[in-house]
Amino acid sequence: MLHWDEATMMPSGGGEARAESLALIAAIVHQRLTHPEVGAFLDQAEDSSEQLGPWQRANLRAMRRSQRQAVAVPESLVRASRIANTRCEQAWRIARGNDDWRAIRGPLEEVVHLTIEGATALGEGLSLAPYDALLDGYEADTRSAQVTEVFDGLKAFLPGFLERVLERQETPEPIRGQFAAEQQHALGEAMMRALGFDFDRGRLDVSDHPFCEGMADDTRITTRYDEQNPLGSLLAVLHETGHALYEQGLPSDWRHQPVGLALGMAIHESQSLLVEMQLGRGRAFMTFAAPIIREQLSLNGDDGAWSTENLHAHVIRVRRDYLRVGADEVTYPLHIILRFELEQALIGGDLAVEDIPEAWDEAMTRYLGLSTRDNMKDGCMQDVHWFAGLFGYFPTYSLGALTAAQLFAAASRANPDLDRQIEAGEFGPLLEWLRREVHGRGQLLTAQDMLVEVTGERLDTRFFKDHLERRYLAG
Amino acid sequence: MLHWDEATMMPSGGGEARAESLALIAAIVHQRLTHPEVGAFLDQAEDSSEQLGPWQRANLRAMRRSQRQAVAVPESLVRASRIANTRCEQAWRIARGNDDWRAIRGPLEEVVHLTIEGATALGEGLSLAPYDALLDGYEADTRSAQVTEVFDGLKAFLPGFLERVLERQETPEPIRGQFAAEQQHALGEAMMRALGFDFDRGRLDVSDHPFCEGMADDTRITTRYDEQNPLGSLLAVLHETGHALYEQGLPSDWRHQPVGLALGMAIHESQSLLVEMQLGRGRAFMTFAAPIIREQLSLNGDDGAWSTENLHAHVIRVRRDYLRVGADEVTYPLHIILRFELEQALIGGDLAVEDIPEAWDEAMTRYLGLSTRDNMKDGCMQDVHWFAGLFGYFPTYSLGALTAAQLFAAASRANPDLDRQIEAGEFGPLLEWLRREVHGRGQLLTAQDMLVEVTGERLDTRFFKDHLERRYLAG
Repeated sequence: MLHWDEATMMPSGGGEARAESLALIAAIVHQRLTHPEVGAFLDQAEDSSEQLGPWQRANLRAMRRSQRQAVAVPESLVRASRIANTRCEQAWRIARGNDDWRAIRGPLEEVVHLTIEGATALGEGLSLAPYDALLDGYEADTRSAQVTEVFDGLKAFLPGFLERVLERQETPEPIRGQFAAEQQHALGEAMMRALGFDFDRGRLDVSDHPFCEGMADDTRITTRYDEQNPLGSLLAVLHETGHALYEQGLPSDWRHQPVGLALGMAIHESQSLLVEMQLGRGRAFMTFAAPIIREQLSLNGDDGAWSTENLHAHVIRVRRDYLRVGADEVTYPLHIILRFELEQALIGGDLAVEDIPEAWDEAMTRYLGLSTRDNMKDGCMQDVHWFAGLFGYFPTYSLGALTAAQLFAAASRANPDLDRQIEAGEFGPLLEWLRREVHGRGQLLTAQDMLVEVTGERLDTRFFKDHLERRYLAG
Repeated sequence: MLHWDEATMMPSGGGEARAESLALIAAIVHQRLTHPEVGAFLDQAEDSSEQLGPWQRANLRAMRRSQRQAVAVPESLVRASRIANTRCEQAWRIARGNDDWRAIRGPLEEVVHLTIEGATALGEGLSLAPYDALLDGYEADTRSAQVTEVFDGLKAFLPGFLERVLERQETPEPIRGQFAAEQQHALGEAMMRALGFDFDRGRLDVSDHPFCEGMADDTRITTRYDEQNPLGSLLAVLHETGHALYEQGLPSDWRHQPVGLALGMAIHESQSLLVEMQLGRGRAFMTFAAPIIREQLSLNGDDGAWSTENLHAHVIRVRRDYLRVGADEVTYPLHIILRFELEQALIGGDLAVEDIPEAWDEAMTRYLGLSTRDNMKDGCMQDVHWFAGLFGYFPTYSLGALTAAQLFAAASRANPDLDRQIEAGEFGPLLEWLRREVHGRGQLLTAQDMLVEVTGERLDTRFFKDHLERRYLAG
């Protein structure tokens, strides 16, 4: 909540005190988790785990995981890291606006320095390499070797696929107009409501970078408004609504217990991308959504630019672009692979902060044919993650995209009427399925076991590739 | 911040978790303050206090005060009280809207029960009677016997004075129109800016009950908007701005140290009432404010209702009314005396919660000639305080009114040009004086010593009475 407030409401003068408050809370949590009594209680519970039911056992496993992570890192480092991260994130908001890399380089060096120290300590405690220790923190049991293998598959597939799509794709008619933030906000809320977002347990606000934070009974999402691009904001709302539906659907019997929380970030991202990409950019969804978009933005459907067909062409438009947020689903994994490779080098000590702009420019040129040499604002400064100390987080976005494709395929198999329901705006059956199969399970199963249980197999990139082929090359 | 969020932003579903969060934080603060080590450190510092400078000594005194208060009450009670208070406050928001006393009676009984238990424990620890222990928590060294004496003086003076004012007063021309919340918000912000509120270190928002919360570098005030009564909202903004200027003016060298915080609630209220009543309802201020009010609300000064003279007549209009918030400064102390007497009876066990409506009706009839028998919403349910567990707080409002009159008289003596400056909207000299004499001192002096230092004498009701005579009977 304090972080949500910082990003949406806080006046700039509150920054210093907020950094200290967040660091203090992190330190208190750390003190509690590392108290020797906690370890002894967990030992005791594990010794008699045959008396526990499956939810309790999963709860115990989640508690032990948190405790092991906490014990591995000294409190002084937790606190120093937290302060450095919050300060750097605050400085980033200003520096990015000014495209001022030099202003942010120092704070980022401090963040990277402390992150490496923390990752090394965590890795020693968990018997993992430093980068793997970070990755494991965002998605349990995920290792960089597996991620590299999956990403190598995408690297072999995507560039050629992208060429074929770009050759084939026709340019949609441009949409023109000025759409006030209030109007776009109302549209966003209408879509959230249609999808099943519970406004008694959540809100929609504005921040520099869209996000979803909070908890099951108070889930807050944000977007940002560009008056000339209402679809951009709407897609961000759909994305964050996917996250929010997951939070709002967590098992109420286990509120505030570890087992009652969401699984890792890859699964979380699978829920946002299932809503934004699998569902939201599909033709069936646009059949439902286009009349609402036109109504909320006071537009005429006779204008070809705002036709269902043309709006759909916009949301599935593929292009080589600088920005990850708002990128289409074909190029998106390339943005992620770039970040995954650079952050491994940063944490491994093979890349210095001062060399990031050059490395970024080189990789963007290689993967997407775009130079960021003269536009760091939309290059290495575009994402908050590194500046907020979030390393090891990016890969979960693309793992999430693959998982979303695999889950949506399972949902479609389980419900042959799904496409028609989506066209009619009947999202109840899909949401019920997600609640039963994913949301309502909390951390009862590991992510891997959940995926096998729900889809019948482990993560496989073929669902994502099939989905791309169908959407972008078929028909 | 979490309480600000609860009152301004939080969706209703977040209430339960928020109550638990606030209780947990209160418990953690309590644990830290009551740790034996803290007591030992304070003993040690007190033993060598001759080595300390005046700020350090005052800091130590403030720390000891907090520690003694914490040690006196067991943690389980702090936690239970906090949960009961937050739940009751949340229930009150709904019950008041429905004028439903029965829905709130049970939660209030729980609050009163736990408050008595806490006040008794606190009183034993501090060698004070239970009600005095509560009073002391809001304004150090204040005792109910002194308050009774001061209030007896007001009870002897006010009813007769009120009669004379009501006989003499002419009814102002009614102001008519509908004024959107956005328009009133802009007017409020313009006034805050003129008075010196720093928007880089604060915000203005909306809540059911106007308040000021936060800290020196992030001070947040709220108001509420009635589309037909823009002056009501504006006066609330002036009031809360007075609180906020105090917070924003606290000594930056002592941020987050006890001595760097504001003095008790009577002094805090003196700052809000100095701005709202002494300054804001004066003729000089309206000379400055009326053109801005007309401009912001798109009104014509030729319309007699919106003339400076008529607007001033509205803000100094005296009337017997049900509500404390928004009451004029003549009847306001009678509202307070009523609450002071009833809450002493409640905490002393001489009044049961179920008998509050009758006792309130009786006292309102006696003091203001108004029955609240059929309107509990605007009777005993009008204020959040008791429902939030705030007993012993009300008297500080009227002590603040008396202090404000005494301080404003001193400011006027020190600056003979003050009236002209106010008419011209030059609030800098007054704010500088307040910063130097009150705000910037934090808790360096006790409230009593500060008042003597600044005004040359202890609290005396004659300044308040003289002020009323001048404003309401002279000219």
